[in-house]
Amino acid sequence: MTELSLLEKIVALCKRRGIIFPSSEIYGGINGVWDFGPLGVELKRNIKESWWKAMTQLRTDVVGMDGSILMNREVWKASTHEDQFVDWFVDCKVCHARFRLDHLKESSCPLKPSKHPGECGGELTEPRRFNLLFKTYVGPLEEESALTYLRPETAQSIFVQFKNVLESSRMKIPFGIAQIGKAFRNEVNPRNFIFRSREFEQMELEYFVPPDTGLQYIEQWKEERVRWYESIGIAKEHIHVREVPEGERAFYSLKTYDLEYDFPFGRQELEGIAYRTDFDLKQHQIFSGKPLEYYDEERKCKYIPHVVEPSAGVDRTLLALLCESYSEEEIIGEKGQKEKRVVLRFSPRIAPIKIGVFPLLKNKAELVQKAQSVFSRLKVHFKSFYDESGAIGRRYRRMDEIGTPFCVTIDFETLEGVREGKLAGKKDTVTVRYRDSMKQDRVGIEELVDFIRQKIG
Amino acid sequence: MTELSLLEKIVALCKRRGIIFPSSEIYGGINGVWDFGPLGVELKRNIKESWWKAMTQLRTDVVGMDGSILMNREVWKASTHEDQFVDWFVDCKVCHARFRLDHLKESSCPLKPSKHPGECGGELTEPRRFNLLFKTYVGPLEEESALTYLRPETAQSIFVQFKNVLESSRMKIPFGIAQIGKAFRNEVNPRNFIFRSREFEQMELEYFVPPDTGLQYIEQWKEERVRWYESIGIAKEHIHVREVPEGERAFYSLKTYDLEYDFPFGRQELEGIAYRTDFDLKQHQIFSGKPLEYYDEERKCKYIPHVVEPSAGVDRTLLALLCESYSEEEIIGEKGQKEKRVVLRFSPRIAPIKIGVFPLLKNKAELVQKAQSVFSRLKVHFKSFYDESGAIGRRYRRMDEIGTPFCVTIDFETLEGVREGKLAGKKDTVTVRYRDSMKQDRVGIEELVDFIRQKIG
Repeated sequence: MTELSLLEKIVALCKRRGIIFPSSEIYGGINGVWDFGPLGVELKRNIKESWWKAMTQLRTDVVGMDGSILMNREVWKASTHEDQFVDWFVDCKVCHARFRLDHLKESSCPLKPSKHPGECGGELTEPRRFNLLFKTYVGPLEEESALTYLRPETAQSIFVQFKNVLESSRMKIPFGIAQIGKAFRNEVNPRNFIFRSREFEQMELEYFVPPDTGLQYIEQWKEERVRWYESIGIAKEHIHVREVPEGERAFYSLKTYDLEYDFPFGRQELEGIAYRTDFDLKQHQIFSGKPLEYYDEERKCKYIPHVVEPSAGVDRTLLALLCESYSEEEIIGEKGQKEKRVVLRFSPRIAPIKIGVFPLLKNKAELVQKAQSVFSRLKVHFKSFYDESGAIGRRYRRMDEIGTPFCVTIDFETLEGVREGKLAGKKDTVTVRYRDSMKQDRVGIEELVDFIRQKIG
Repeated sequence: MTELSLLEKIVALCKRRGIIFPSSEIYGGINGVWDFGPLGVELKRNIKESWWKAMTQLRTDVVGMDGSILMNREVWKASTHEDQFVDWFVDCKVCHARFRLDHLKESSCPLKPSKHPGECGGELTEPRRFNLLFKTYVGPLEEESALTYLRPETAQSIFVQFKNVLESSRMKIPFGIAQIGKAFRNEVNPRNFIFRSREFEQMELEYFVPPDTGLQYIEQWKEERVRWYESIGIAKEHIHVREVPEGERAFYSLKTYDLEYDFPFGRQELEGIAYRTDFDLKQHQIFSGKPLEYYDEERKCKYIPHVVEPSAGVDRTLLALLCESYSEEEIIGEKGQKEKRVVLRFSPRIAPIKIGVFPLLKNKAELVQKAQSVFSRLKVHFKSFYDESGAIGRRYRRMDEIGTPFCVTIDFETLEGVREGKLAGKKDTVTVRYRDSMKQDRVGIEELVDFIRQKIG
């Protein structure tokens, strides 16, 4: 399949199966904003849960927090966002398309014939400056003193609460504060499905270290973060580590790595890992007048901690997982015919539904009753889905398409006892069918929860 | 303790132990907006997880979704928020305090001497109208066509995606769509800690039913929701069900129940359960021009579904849990002295940290090493906390104060074998100390994960 069509297929699958919809779609949508349907919300939950567990629960040196989207405007003065969080853009004078200057290689309008008949090539306007912060007013009056912004990143909540978290948690440097939450950027040109949206969700860690150790810790976090993507099912070979050269880095960063992924629309940033020095805490100390120093008991001295920041996106991770997992195969169907099988090869921990539970036939009350009792048992432990409609082969296909790793089928051998093999004569067993190999095991209902728990790992 | 001081104690505990901080505190805060610290974020996660599991995973008739905060402005015209989501307020001409008209019983300024010397009693201004929607502009131009709002409730995302969710999930009525997410209201007078904030998190279910069954389903949901609060640790007797009289109900609601809780500042709404009729879907059908009817295969007819909505707040639930769980006791300390013990009696599932793990002494390498290995084993399964600093009694007190239900201590009997009793001679056992009773059990390290899993339930 061509790379362009892969993205189109994923977008269509996401719509059809309830993973991602355009926000406010019945009103024509809102540019650059997306909703997550029944399966999308479960995928996002699993990604976030995996990040949170790896970053906080399994570590002794990181605590979490959950800061607000609306903050005091001074935060964004100190962080330089109010003045400097800008994009430069140009418009085509002929077709009125808008481009980010830093995304433009051409000096005239680059629109391609595929979308617009005849390559445009129109003259471009002079570059204009545009601040990406969404403004709003807090309180009853729309006046300067009531102005603030929707946060464009979660990181600043962590910096401004550094002292509160430090004091209440009794942590010692090196330690980190992790946060998952929404952020908003009024992008000039949102695009590539959920890759560049105006509303998105970040997973950020600010890791506070002694001043002379930042360059050492950024190497550790780079390794750690690649391992995490591997753990959720993105092959290590598909993550490209790029050291960002000085001219491209944020001005306060002494070193930055981008972890990049080969999306269908090109190799693009999945996560940035930046050594931010003491820039943020220093700025907030200056602007707030509150001391943000740390007394290091081992070194017997005070300093403003330096920061290494691995900053990931929930939406980008989800898109990478969709691209990584999508596959089409030709298989031989039940009646011997060739069939196309679409499979999302999600790792079991990420899959939105872990188990499909089916009675072999819908019109046999005993099968249905037994299947429902197996379902009731499983759903307490795993996100499960009961389905009795259509031929069993179609039910498997529907589960393959949304990446369900296990299907449990209740058949006549469940009721009457296994016909042959090791388990011959045993009642109350079911088949467990694996999404990727399409092979099946026969497992006792009593053992099923532990069996699947082990397979999920 | 007086009721006023209970809230003050909770606010102080929340700050000191990292549960809740004022947002942007180093800049003087931002009125009506709060951040959640290391323990607060875990509490919120546990509340949300419990709601999500009860509402989606354990049910076959509800699916989830996660809609955006920014939506097309037409949504808020259809929902009537743009025109009618207003509060009326008055100001005191003397002390300039501001009041919501519907919260005011007096006709002059009611400020009490406790906060303001001398009862104020000043003359009040005429009531003024104020829309509670936060405005923002999407795209580069601040013009009418780019205007939209931060969503004031999550419910409308569900209504506008009703058709997409229905079609992709193949659900049949009656069924529900559940959502957890942030909402924003530019409150005239935010107050009572996290009870009435400008930024808050909702847990809403829209349950779609045939037109003539709404009054029946609202009764079911009322029972169901009271049971949920019970399940997370709020005594049934403390939840007061109030039928909201016609004059107070939203104009589109045929019946509404409030579940109220006795907060320290009075009996107040914890959750609203409203029978919203077909008002919302009908409005969106009219405004969008898209059909939002449902074809009922059993009844062989088309209709716009009616909706029953249980709408809960994460923040209010957290505040109720803090009020419900906070207790002070006088106990006899290790040296025979009287001591005050502060305990948050959270149910184990809600507690932010499940297990504290301690070596009896910090300066015995073998105890420390063993304790760390027990901690490593536990943290994979439960949010755990390792602590070796201070006397063991103080470590217990610190865990009591944040509601940790179990403390595991590694002592000399762990290394040398149990001295007496049933387990005499057995090595590798630890004490498990219970927060509420302060009693202890001796448990083998091998059995510990299952033992605690069973206790949490």
